[in-house]
Amino acid sequence: MKMILFSAAALALVFGFAGMSQTAGPKHHVAFQLSEAEGAAWDALPVHVNNTMKALAEDGGVQVEVVFWGPGIEMLRKTNSAYAERLKLLSEHGVKLLACRNAMKNRSLASEDLFPFAGEVDSGIAEIVRKQEAGWAYIH
Amino acid sequence: MKMILFSAAALALVFGFAGMSQTAGPKHHVAFQLSEAEGAAWDALPVHVNNTMKALAEDGGVQVEVVFWGPGIEMLRKTNSAYAERLKLLSEHGVKLLACRNAMKNRSLASEDLFPFAGEVDSGIAEIVRKQEAGWAYIH
Amino acid sequence: MKMILFSAAALALVFGFAGMSQTAGPKHHVAFQLSEAEGAAWDALPVHVNNTMKALAEDGGVQVEVVFWGPGIEMLRKTNSAYAERLKLLSEHGVKLLACRNAMKNRSLASEDLFPFAGEVDSGIAEIVRKQEAGWAYIH
Repeated sequence: MKMILFSAAALALVFGFAGMSQTAGPKHHVAFQLSEAEGAAWDALPVHVNNTMKALAEDGGVQVEVVFWGPGIEMLRKTNSAYAERLKLLSEHGVKLLACRNAMKNRSLASEDLFPFAGEVDSGIAEIVRKQEAGWAYIH
Repeated sequence: MKMILFSAAALALVFGFAGMSQTAGPKHHVAFQLSEAEGAAWDALPVHVNNTMKALAEDGGVQVEVVFWGPGIEMLRKTNSAYAERLKLLSEHGVKLLACRNAMKNRSLASEDLFPFAGEVDSGIAEIVRKQEAGWAYIH
Repeated sequence: MKMILFSAAALALVFGFAGMSQTAGPKHHVAFQLSEAEGAAWDALPVHVNNTMKALAEDGGVQVEVVFWGPGIEMLRKTNSAYAERLKLLSEHGVKLLACRNAMKNRSLASEDLFPFAGEVDSGIAEIVRKQEAGWAYIH
């Protein structure tokens, strides 16, 4: 499944360069917000991201990032073993997982407390704002 | 009330063709996300869509679609008689009600299990992404 | 802290006029939706708005408005003393706090029932729609 996803993305890239305008990278861009505490939202996230990537793979591909804040920041805590594998897989598929430093501060979380594949942004909301301004779709 | 809505929309269309640029269709476009289980979100949806249509009817009109996924897909189940009339009315006013096929699959729902006026999309999130890219507003 | 915020905004304005295009006002625009009942969402709102303003203050500044509807409208009730000070501070920092008149009607709220610094819009959703159409980012 993952290989198919990659191949489709690669194909999309090739077609992108050959048949569309000379933009590098995927055609679609999506920023997900994950601000909920553990539960349905955590379970849904990897499913939603995967489904989105699959749906858009043959339509130019998609670049995805997920921004975590509020109680959602806990999902990135490296002791969160229940979700570690699923998040790591997303990261390996090119999905950026970004922790909001304001949320980290509120919960006294240091970079070392998060998964090594998690990135960080000063403000999760400002990150989403900038992405929307740059033409990214927003999903919450 | 519904007649007033229709008249206003008709007027908006007339003024649209006469006084604005020659774009076909309404001036505004909104994609609503309905991903919640039964409860407040289901009750609010028809009210929110109606209010939005009323508010924008005299300002060029609005095209609305609602995309259902997650537990929200259950709202479109044809056995959902409590909401059937309200959803049918929305559909009759031109609102597209779109089921996410990923959510249908997760819950073993076939097309026949949904209201006959429900549409379908491969991925609800990809649908919202494409609409945002096309300039539609997003409301969740 | 508040003085620093103001100074940064003033600086951003100066740099805005001097170094960027001749657009009046801040570079970023964000519309927040507050539609939840009392609880975590109410506590988070002032924090989120403040963090957003702080994060974007040195990047051209940000204009923020918050649109209240559904049970969220209750946050603007002038008897809501627990949040009065925090909301007033936001208002004094230039944040527009806008009540949806549909929600006011649903709950038999008159203008006099709301904080004197609250504004009003005919439809909260239509307001958010128009802001997104005007290039504002949307956060919910």
